[in-house]
Amino acid sequence: MNQAPLAVVLLSGGMDSCVTLALTLEQGYSIAALHVNYGQHTERRELQSFHDLCTYYNISNKLVVDITHLAQIGGSSLTRADIQVPGAMVEPGAVVHGMNPVGWDSERGTIPNTYVPFRNANILAIATSWAEVIGAHAISIGAVEEDSSGYPDCRESFFKAFEKAISEGTRPGSEIHILSPVIHLRKLEIVREGQRLHAPFHLTWSCYRNEAEACGDCDSCRLRLKGFSEAGIPDPIPYH
Amino acid sequence: MNQAPLAVVLLSGGMDSCVTLALTLEQGYSIAALHVNYGQHTERRELQSFHDLCTYYNISNKLVVDITHLAQIGGSSLTRADIQVPGAMVEPGAVVHGMNPVGWDSERGTIPNTYVPFRNANILAIATSWAEVIGAHAISIGAVEEDSSGYPDCRESFFKAFEKAISEGTRPGSEIHILSPVIHLRKLEIVREGQRLHAPFHLTWSCYRNEAEACGDCDSCRLRLKGFSEAGIPDPIPYH
Repeated sequence: MNQAPLAVVLLSGGMDSCVTLALTLEQGYSIAALHVNYGQHTERRELQSFHDLCTYYNISNKLVVDITHLAQIGGSSLTRADIQVPGAMVEPGAVVHGMNPVGWDSERGTIPNTYVPFRNANILAIATSWAEVIGAHAISIGAVEEDSSGYPDCRESFFKAFEKAISEGTRPGSEIHILSPVIHLRKLEIVREGQRLHAPFHLTWSCYRNEAEACGDCDSCRLRLKGFSEAGIPDPIPYH
Repeated sequence: MNQAPLAVVLLSGGMDSCVTLALTLEQGYSIAALHVNYGQHTERRELQSFHDLCTYYNISNKLVVDITHLAQIGGSSLTRADIQVPGAMVEPGAVVHGMNPVGWDSERGTIPNTYVPFRNANILAIATSWAEVIGAHAISIGAVEEDSSGYPDCRESFFKAFEKAISEGTRPGSEIHILSPVIHLRKLEIVREGQRLHAPFHLTWSCYRNEAEACGDCDSCRLRLKGFSEAGIPDPIPYH
């Protein structure tokens, strides 16, 4: 046996997770791709990007998981007057690996109305279960600290702590590490890394409003367009 | 405001989680109860116990979460010849807070055929999301090391590591701790603690085969019956 080590890549279908995948491949891993569905508005379009990216990279080891209970938990924060709503005013870009917030409130524009605390831990726990079952030694996540408004489960210190929990909670010898190759990059650097690695940006989706043409106006579109603009590269996806 | 601090108790409906609930109440917490459904054979009966216990203890803050994706992940280990099946030969009692294994293979009798690694992390991640949303400062889990056959995510060292991940991944000031009040107890000690606190054992369910009368023969029944027998107390639930 002289196979490449296996990594589980969290692949939302957005540009950050796409470049994370490209960087993980560059590090010599073979890939198992995990997509998590929160029931977000544009999930159908994101899921299409997930499958398109897997096809592009010839990834057959795919897993799509529904965790709508996170919306259920998050939702409860909005219906109870005695609970402080968590994560309000968090930028859309704060959301893990380019995933859109659940239940985005399009009327208010900037407040994800069911943002769920500790979301990345839920996702990483699923990824770890799968990694241990399939013998993967890495989990690669496209979190970006700059986009995260300091949300605690997007920070490198959280990933380090979770990696320790993985080490304690999986079988000896599992040796599963967390990779976050874009965590300290700015959006324009992510665009450049993607260009360097010929990442198929045309297959990715970031808009959390529309599924046919990106709106260009939501915070996720704005972050993306700013990155491409600063990198001096045209964004290949269609805009309204 | 001079309310009791709030704890999320993982309540499967089994005797360990029932006594864990009683001990958490004794520590002065008010309770929010979380039940997790893996699609196990006797889930309907366990869910009934969950609701019965909540009624007994006057707990209105309840959450039931389905995580059948864990079965999906675990199942994959059995269908791929190139993957070493994890957790095989693990005792039924190994399963978190008295929860029965998913997809128990009744023909083989002792091998949970879809045991999922890192299951407790998945459950604790959900519990933490909920705890942060509702302002709970503790998560109480009825894991028992003696029953666990050394499974890594049932050990106290894992819970300590996960608690650190919670600290790093939730908002400053969240202060969510993991309680595992029965982790070092033997079954007979759990029975005695339950008796001391008038825990309603008659409302609990442990058998993973039957839903009307406990079989008395599966490993979960045997562990339970042995505990009651050693404690010199009759088990109040009906046996076949």
